[in-house]
Amino acid sequence: MKTDCIQLDHGAGGRASHELVARAFLPALTNPILAELNDAAAMTLDGLRLAMTTDSYVVDPIFFPGGDIGSLAVHGTVNDLAMRGARPLYLSVGFILEEGLVLADLERIVQSLAAAAREAGVQVVTADTKVVPRGKADRIFINTSGVGIIPPGVHIAGQNARAGDRVLINGPMGDHGVAVLSKREGLSFQTELESDSAPLNGLVAAMLGASREIHVLRDPTRGGVATSLNEIARQSKVGIRLEESRLPVRPAVTAACEMLGLEPLYVANEGKVLAFVAPEDADSVLAVMGSHPLGREACAIGEVVEDHPGRVVLETEIGGTRIVDMLSGEQLPRIC
Amino acid sequence: MKTDCIQLDHGAGGRASHELVARAFLPALTNPILAELNDAAAMTLDGLRLAMTTDSYVVDPIFFPGGDIGSLAVHGTVNDLAMRGARPLYLSVGFILEEGLVLADLERIVQSLAAAAREAGVQVVTADTKVVPRGKADRIFINTSGVGIIPPGVHIAGQNARAGDRVLINGPMGDHGVAVLSKREGLSFQTELESDSAPLNGLVAAMLGASREIHVLRDPTRGGVATSLNEIARQSKVGIRLEESRLPVRPAVTAACEMLGLEPLYVANEGKVLAFVAPEDADSVLAVMGSHPLGREACAIGEVVEDHPGRVVLETEIGGTRIVDMLSGEQLPRIC
Repeated sequence: MKTDCIQLDHGAGGRASHELVARAFLPALTNPILAELNDAAAMTLDGLRLAMTTDSYVVDPIFFPGGDIGSLAVHGTVNDLAMRGARPLYLSVGFILEEGLVLADLERIVQSLAAAAREAGVQVVTADTKVVPRGKADRIFINTSGVGIIPPGVHIAGQNARAGDRVLINGPMGDHGVAVLSKREGLSFQTELESDSAPLNGLVAAMLGASREIHVLRDPTRGGVATSLNEIARQSKVGIRLEESRLPVRPAVTAACEMLGLEPLYVANEGKVLAFVAPEDADSVLAVMGSHPLGREACAIGEVVEDHPGRVVLETEIGGTRIVDMLSGEQLPRIC
Repeated sequence: MKTDCIQLDHGAGGRASHELVARAFLPALTNPILAELNDAAAMTLDGLRLAMTTDSYVVDPIFFPGGDIGSLAVHGTVNDLAMRGARPLYLSVGFILEEGLVLADLERIVQSLAAAAREAGVQVVTADTKVVPRGKADRIFINTSGVGIIPPGVHIAGQNARAGDRVLINGPMGDHGVAVLSKREGLSFQTELESDSAPLNGLVAAMLGASREIHVLRDPTRGGVATSLNEIARQSKVGIRLEESRLPVRPAVTAACEMLGLEPLYVANEGKVLAFVAPEDADSVLAVMGSHPLGREACAIGEVVEDHPGRVVLETEIGGTRIVDMLSGEQLPRIC
């Protein structure tokens, strides 16, 4: 393996991605805002608390069950803002198009992007288009950056998990990754698997209405729930204990993962939120989640503990325990 | 020519780019902010006037005389904010990396990007990295989005040109495009040609200190001075008269353009600003520009007229006139 070149797993969101950030990006770019490494940056400007985030989307295939690269580019960025408790307001959109892209595909993607923005209540205020020669990109890449406002009294960050916090999730894991990979590999299953891609800002606003003791929110995209929880355990210097019996996975996703050699804990989601909530508020937050269309299958999957800081430990269904590490290696390239 | 597919000239910033925006993007995405089609969007939030912009950078080669894709990604986005009179504050950076990119090249680019951000006084607050397989991108693409604050009393937009305004530029045209193309084509000239890539926010702040009667600012990047002036003529529904004898071009650029079959008026710049200034303030703004390191060769190149609204007309050195249209066709792909 040539280690002096970019490898696919540098983009998979797991261990190699973190190493790349630590080696190539943080030393040159670091500042207190960036160094927090949250889903969105938070800055105070004339008393206004702004959140800002960016993501490039390179998903393959560009159309998949439950969405396409256009809707995904809105959901992913809106969700990163929502993970700071921000109200998403404005999006920028940057297209990189490959010469030869079918114009009808572009129009379909732009319409899907526009519909997703309307649904999420955000405005696309600025845009850019570049075209590169055939063979120098793969049809279409989209960058969306987003700006939102963090309401007064909301202080959500990966650093804020506390021992005792309950770990909640709004539904089953792995739908997005399995839907995209199945489509890419041409697999068909008896049950149609759809991406969970959705805008979470409405759900998060409802949750914040129920409790101001929500300490951490994170959307487990690349690297899945396991990687997101490891990030939070490190940022907050706490341990996380998961109960395997409580981890929600659709039977069809379990079956597909077995066939594809994947573990649902590491598979990407695009409409899921992990919430770390003070124990006294966990039930009321769960109730609000359960009554929201995007949280009907919400459940508690574990808790924050003082033991094993920086580590995520799974209590297995047969009564043992095992360490759940970050994604290492390239499980699913180009999943978002 | 297949017209139902994306062509290279859809990304060249000229006529085809405008047609693509009008056909594929505006119908689906339009809102009053986006529809203004300025270099940066302007929004008022709790009394604060925010500017936001985005650009993806796909320049080839990634290292060129006078800069690289990293410094360019900062300058281009900082300049788009400055063109609204905004003070640039925050940048997001999204990397799309091709598998096999040499890590040392990435590190060099990130360091250059970081140095450019420091020089421009902006912070990179959020970032993202994606990796695509070999052959699915071209080494590195970078998206930067930017957020800034527009000071009270500053109202600069492409719609604001008025008859009588003087058209100023801070120096000679075409350096960036010719430097990049020469490097790409492996040409060498007796005189080393360097990109003019530079952050214009300091110069613009000085100009705004001298006059609040600056009506339009635009950085003539893709499509060059000719295309930018055509955009402004259409947005403001005015005519623009240029004097050929006043158009500043370095002799080395003139020579290179003749060799390459280019016209300097259509060649991209990355450190130039076109300013439309009320006639009574033109001299004081020119004086301020001339005393700034990025404006030593500033000059007036024309004026806004009531005749021929929407058109740019050149008075040639031999006393004739000709219409200067937008760039049509692909002159310089991947110039930024």
